[in-house]
Amino acid sequence: MNTLGTSYRITSIGESHGKIVGIVIDGCPAGLKLDMERLQADLDRRRPGQSRVSTTRNEADRAEVLTGLYEGVTTGAPITIIIRNQDRDSSKYLEARWTPRPGHADYTAGIRYGEKQDPRGGGRFSGRNTAGFVIAGAVAKQLLDKIGTIVVAYTNQIGPIVAKDVDPAKVTETNIVRCPDEAAAEEMIRVIEEARSEGDSVGGKVKVVALNPPRGIGQPIFDTLEGDIAKALYAIPAVKAVEFGAGVGYAKMRGSGANDQYVIRDGKVATETNNSGGILGGISSGMPIEATLTFKPTPSIGVEQKTVDLQRMEETTIKVEGRHDPCIVPRAVPVVEAMMAVVLADHALRAGLIPQVLGE
Amino acid sequence: MNTLGTSYRITSIGESHGKIVGIVIDGCPAGLKLDMERLQADLDRRRPGQSRVSTTRNEADRAEVLTGLYEGVTTGAPITIIIRNQDRDSSKYLEARWTPRPGHADYTAGIRYGEKQDPRGGGRFSGRNTAGFVIAGAVAKQLLDKIGTIVVAYTNQIGPIVAKDVDPAKVTETNIVRCPDEAAAEEMIRVIEEARSEGDSVGGKVKVVALNPPRGIGQPIFDTLEGDIAKALYAIPAVKAVEFGAGVGYAKMRGSGANDQYVIRDGKVATETNNSGGILGGISSGMPIEATLTFKPTPSIGVEQKTVDLQRMEETTIKVEGRHDPCIVPRAVPVVEAMMAVVLADHALRAGLIPQVLGE
Amino acid sequence: MNTLGTSYRITSIGESHGKIVGIVIDGCPAGLKLDMERLQADLDRRRPGQSRVSTTRNEADRAEVLTGLYEGVTTGAPITIIIRNQDRDSSKYLEARWTPRPGHADYTAGIRYGEKQDPRGGGRFSGRNTAGFVIAGAVAKQLLDKIGTIVVAYTNQIGPIVAKDVDPAKVTETNIVRCPDEAAAEEMIRVIEEARSEGDSVGGKVKVVALNPPRGIGQPIFDTLEGDIAKALYAIPAVKAVEFGAGVGYAKMRGSGANDQYVIRDGKVATETNNSGGILGGISSGMPIEATLTFKPTPSIGVEQKTVDLQRMEETTIKVEGRHDPCIVPRAVPVVEAMMAVVLADHALRAGLIPQVLGE
Amino acid sequence: MNTLGTSYRITSIGESHGKIVGIVIDGCPAGLKLDMERLQADLDRRRPGQSRVSTTRNEADRAEVLTGLYEGVTTGAPITIIIRNQDRDSSKYLEARWTPRPGHADYTAGIRYGEKQDPRGGGRFSGRNTAGFVIAGAVAKQLLDKIGTIVVAYTNQIGPIVAKDVDPAKVTETNIVRCPDEAAAEEMIRVIEEARSEGDSVGGKVKVVALNPPRGIGQPIFDTLEGDIAKALYAIPAVKAVEFGAGVGYAKMRGSGANDQYVIRDGKVATETNNSGGILGGISSGMPIEATLTFKPTPSIGVEQKTVDLQRMEETTIKVEGRHDPCIVPRAVPVVEAMMAVVLADHALRAGLIPQVLGE
Repeated sequence: MNTLGTSYRITSIGESHGKIVGIVIDGCPAGLKLDMERLQADLDRRRPGQSRVSTTRNEADRAEVLTGLYEGVTTGAPITIIIRNQDRDSSKYLEARWTPRPGHADYTAGIRYGEKQDPRGGGRFSGRNTAGFVIAGAVAKQLLDKIGTIVVAYTNQIGPIVAKDVDPAKVTETNIVRCPDEAAAEEMIRVIEEARSEGDSVGGKVKVVALNPPRGIGQPIFDTLEGDIAKALYAIPAVKAVEFGAGVGYAKMRGSGANDQYVIRDGKVATETNNSGGILGGISSGMPIEATLTFKPTPSIGVEQKTVDLQRMEETTIKVEGRHDPCIVPRAVPVVEAMMAVVLADHALRAGLIPQVLGE
Repeated sequence: MNTLGTSYRITSIGESHGKIVGIVIDGCPAGLKLDMERLQADLDRRRPGQSRVSTTRNEADRAEVLTGLYEGVTTGAPITIIIRNQDRDSSKYLEARWTPRPGHADYTAGIRYGEKQDPRGGGRFSGRNTAGFVIAGAVAKQLLDKIGTIVVAYTNQIGPIVAKDVDPAKVTETNIVRCPDEAAAEEMIRVIEEARSEGDSVGGKVKVVALNPPRGIGQPIFDTLEGDIAKALYAIPAVKAVEFGAGVGYAKMRGSGANDQYVIRDGKVATETNNSGGILGGISSGMPIEATLTFKPTPSIGVEQKTVDLQRMEETTIKVEGRHDPCIVPRAVPVVEAMMAVVLADHALRAGLIPQVLGE
Repeated sequence: MNTLGTSYRITSIGESHGKIVGIVIDGCPAGLKLDMERLQADLDRRRPGQSRVSTTRNEADRAEVLTGLYEGVTTGAPITIIIRNQDRDSSKYLEARWTPRPGHADYTAGIRYGEKQDPRGGGRFSGRNTAGFVIAGAVAKQLLDKIGTIVVAYTNQIGPIVAKDVDPAKVTETNIVRCPDEAAAEEMIRVIEEARSEGDSVGGKVKVVALNPPRGIGQPIFDTLEGDIAKALYAIPAVKAVEFGAGVGYAKMRGSGANDQYVIRDGKVATETNNSGGILGGISSGMPIEATLTFKPTPSIGVEQKTVDLQRMEETTIKVEGRHDPCIVPRAVPVVEAMMAVVLADHALRAGLIPQVLGE
Repeated sequence: MNTLGTSYRITSIGESHGKIVGIVIDGCPAGLKLDMERLQADLDRRRPGQSRVSTTRNEADRAEVLTGLYEGVTTGAPITIIIRNQDRDSSKYLEARWTPRPGHADYTAGIRYGEKQDPRGGGRFSGRNTAGFVIAGAVAKQLLDKIGTIVVAYTNQIGPIVAKDVDPAKVTETNIVRCPDEAAAEEMIRVIEEARSEGDSVGGKVKVVALNPPRGIGQPIFDTLEGDIAKALYAIPAVKAVEFGAGVGYAKMRGSGANDQYVIRDGKVATETNNSGGILGGISSGMPIEATLTFKPTPSIGVEQKTVDLQRMEETTIKVEGRHDPCIVPRAVPVVEAMMAVVLADHALRAGLIPQVLGE
């Protein structure tokens, strides 16, 4: 189903080349004066056509509130916010139904939904639906403000280039790849442009950190914070790995090096290290919550690839035309932030840490 | 909440040192003649005390059916299966409430549930609850049999030692670390025993593969197969990374190398490579579904570590006594299989691929 | 939350005097060619201003598809259909916040959502939101067509006047109160006009019948067909009683008269009577599913009533102005049909009786 | 599925003639010292064999806690409480599979679950499962204590005999039919014994009232308090009508008589009448929450009835043997209380009115 969350529950609506993409947010407390400019700013960070490392498809992506606000303030009713699609050139997508593009969902979508699914621009499978995620996250961030939690994400790796010495508390976006390590950023841009010039694409990683997160949210067993965050992050197309804290690095560690030992800092319990990414037993410890996501390279490439003609059941080849991001990672950064914010707001509401009616 | 799944829905019950651990399975089709020996065999693979690389805690872990079967056949009613706890020595755990063990959930559990939580053996946070997962998975595997799907997991890495050239279709368990690469297995055993001899522990990775999986299960957006599998796998204590297919390796790839190109094999659509781990757009392609999990080292170690006395709010140290697995990975293998089976059965039922009443 | 259902899941969005009211439908199978004229016809049956026994508020209520259809056919993605609100005169509602109208939700809404809720036209509490229900029901009816099930509702009682000798299989709407008993209908119209002329309103009952329903949908214990239908029907404002079959009449019966005895009719199992309303043990028997709903009189009346000034905490009086239905029952008929259809489609999908991809 | 509720979530397990019946309670706050004697007292009110107007089947029905408590206090983990079945004579039920008993679920169960369902004592369809409901309700009542809410139910009608002038605040159980109107109670007993002497059974009504309920719980649209209470009450076998406040009586009323007008009483907002049963717009007003349920007569009667031999597809007759309640209403009273308490506790938790960790 197209709904996520328990107490802050979002429903994704829309298609890439249909009339709109959007989101319905249910469970948002009444009384939140929504800062629409800030919401729009996050959308602008995600929108296509914003820099030379992204697609040339250009959409203004203006958020439009349909329901749930009265005089700019949430009422407790479902909030529906949509974006009208404008720049639609669907002609190139129609044949993908029968000659599926490698790395895309064309083939699996056909099995699941039959021939009637919307082939235009990836339809329901397009990354464009993440614009709705960004909206849901922008509202969630404004809820998290009430408890002092800030979510930041940044590009941590593109191709072989890895960012170094990043302090999450000081991240600002000063370059088009959204990597706070300026030296690495320059290299990353070079790697992306190189791939693009060859009609190819490249993968990468995004790191997301929640600073000053609420303590004690999450649960053991099934509704672990890791599980719920991972599920939300896997909603972002092209994500193929989600790690927390030391992540895959834990495999080589010993317990004596891996355990985060407790100390008292500023009168509060803290840990010396944060290998656990701020989560123990599925519950937040109060240390920064840290996750790292790996994105596969954009599957749309100009290089010739093998595929199958499904009607004739014979092998053929395909070369994907169209305007595509040679690396989706920079534009994914605000989407990753958004999904982390959505899950933290949900769990903070579940734990009763954000009231159901907000005052001024 | 302690319930997972939509159409095959499991509820975890029990505590490590309480009377029982167990599982309630809702949504299992009527008419399944349950093979209890096969179920017990999976439990035996997970149970403590089975080899020299696991804890010396020794429990028979006999599955006992309380509800949902009539003359050995499922009726469509909820299936409750429990294991009575026997070997309980709780004395060592009682102080952990006030001097939390690093890497354990003692501290976060206290924030979440207050002082009244059960401190014995980790209580609700103990890995012992995964015995219930294994039961749920054993039933799910028997459902997957009906559509020809087999789930296998194995140890892929322990400390720095990585298994090589494993063919998932030929995995059998011939050694105590459950690694099909015999040469690597020997090294792994050495690594574990070395850590144990120093009162330390070590991490590792498990790889899980679903062979001949149903095509077309899963969904785009929120109920992606990756998202649901990841959420289920993060229910296993100590898991800190979940990757699909090429996983973190995708970051360095280019699209031309990463995309799985389509070919026809034995008259069916297949892909030449399987970097995607059998999932595109959140939906299964029919290629093997592959995930890799990273486990952190067991936090219970005999080495002295810093902690905090929460009542006096002062720093102190702790050395964890008790019988613990120096590496949890080998015993986790059947648990990982189980959770993968649970999610696949759930999605196969959701997609209508397994009938709601099974015949002979 | 504002979502209902498991496999056919609807989310209500909108406010009476906001921009739109609407519905998001998730889980509708792909491949359904949606008959929009038939959908609009149901909306027209519900819309205000249609006859002299309803409100004079006049809205065209045109359904507008935002998402989920491609070339007029469902794709399996969420279907969003909205109605733009046009005729908005909110001036009379603003004071209700502080002097709650008896019988309305003004007072309870204020407790639940604080002062920030939308007071215009009842906002989220308005019967206008049921336009979205009708849309969801119209789509559900087209799914039920595939299995031959037809849902019909009609006015069964208004004030003291009760319809007699109605054969649900022959119901057509030939009068403005939607009562198939023409003689009773005339009396009902008189009763309504009498109430209106005195600035008063009147209650009544609607009966809804599903003809040729699927056999074997529903479940024992919590997801009984009665429970799920009742919950859905109570979503309609002003409903205060839901009965199945003989309903409250069962209290006076004896088992020998109450039990529906089995016979064979046309080679199929049937029952001689249908006191159970087609449901036994929470599961449909194949006999017509029958429910009766009681609606309270419209609370908006021109008669002076006691109320409280919540700011000064002193007693005062109120006379509700505005254009209101003196009896909501006739306009509720298509809404009742819709909610019954929604639940039956949901359970038919849950039971696997409607395929997930529909062919031509 | 066999799970009900959002924040206080119960899962029903067990079968009438299987090993156990029971309940799993998820979401109960930690820190509740459970009064097991009080819980057992409610079970004793429900148990069979307690008086001459109930079945002679005799079971001790002792509650046994399997999980979720530590030293008698809830830990926040799922609470599993079971009752072992003792008095099992299943011989008479085995043939019902092929010659379904009128008024029972034999026929519909067979359609839904096939031949493999448990036929013994109605199995999953037996009223015996409501013992688990009573346990869940007993825990819920102890949560409601924390906010001063008390739930009472009583027999309001049996056959043609209706209780008069009952003040819910003064209800005590002084007779075997649980009717506070002693004169009516005598008549009711006579009506039941008369029916029993003729091998027949009789229906009736139960009224349930929540005194001093929390204000502002529930929601408009789908999660209305009426909808959630009705769904929970329809889980009780034999319930065929659920009314709130004036219920079916509203049909004949006019708005001027039906609306509950606001006044100030003891410095608080109240209403002069309570026709709405304490619920407006799906949300509690603070006035007593009142519902009335109609039970059909027990379908098990010694009178000869028509049925069908499903194997031969021919008509035949049946006379139901066994020990049955000639009127289920008196024993249903504690079950009704329980389900009301479950829903109110759920909504009070959802609204944040009961903390997630309880102190002494």
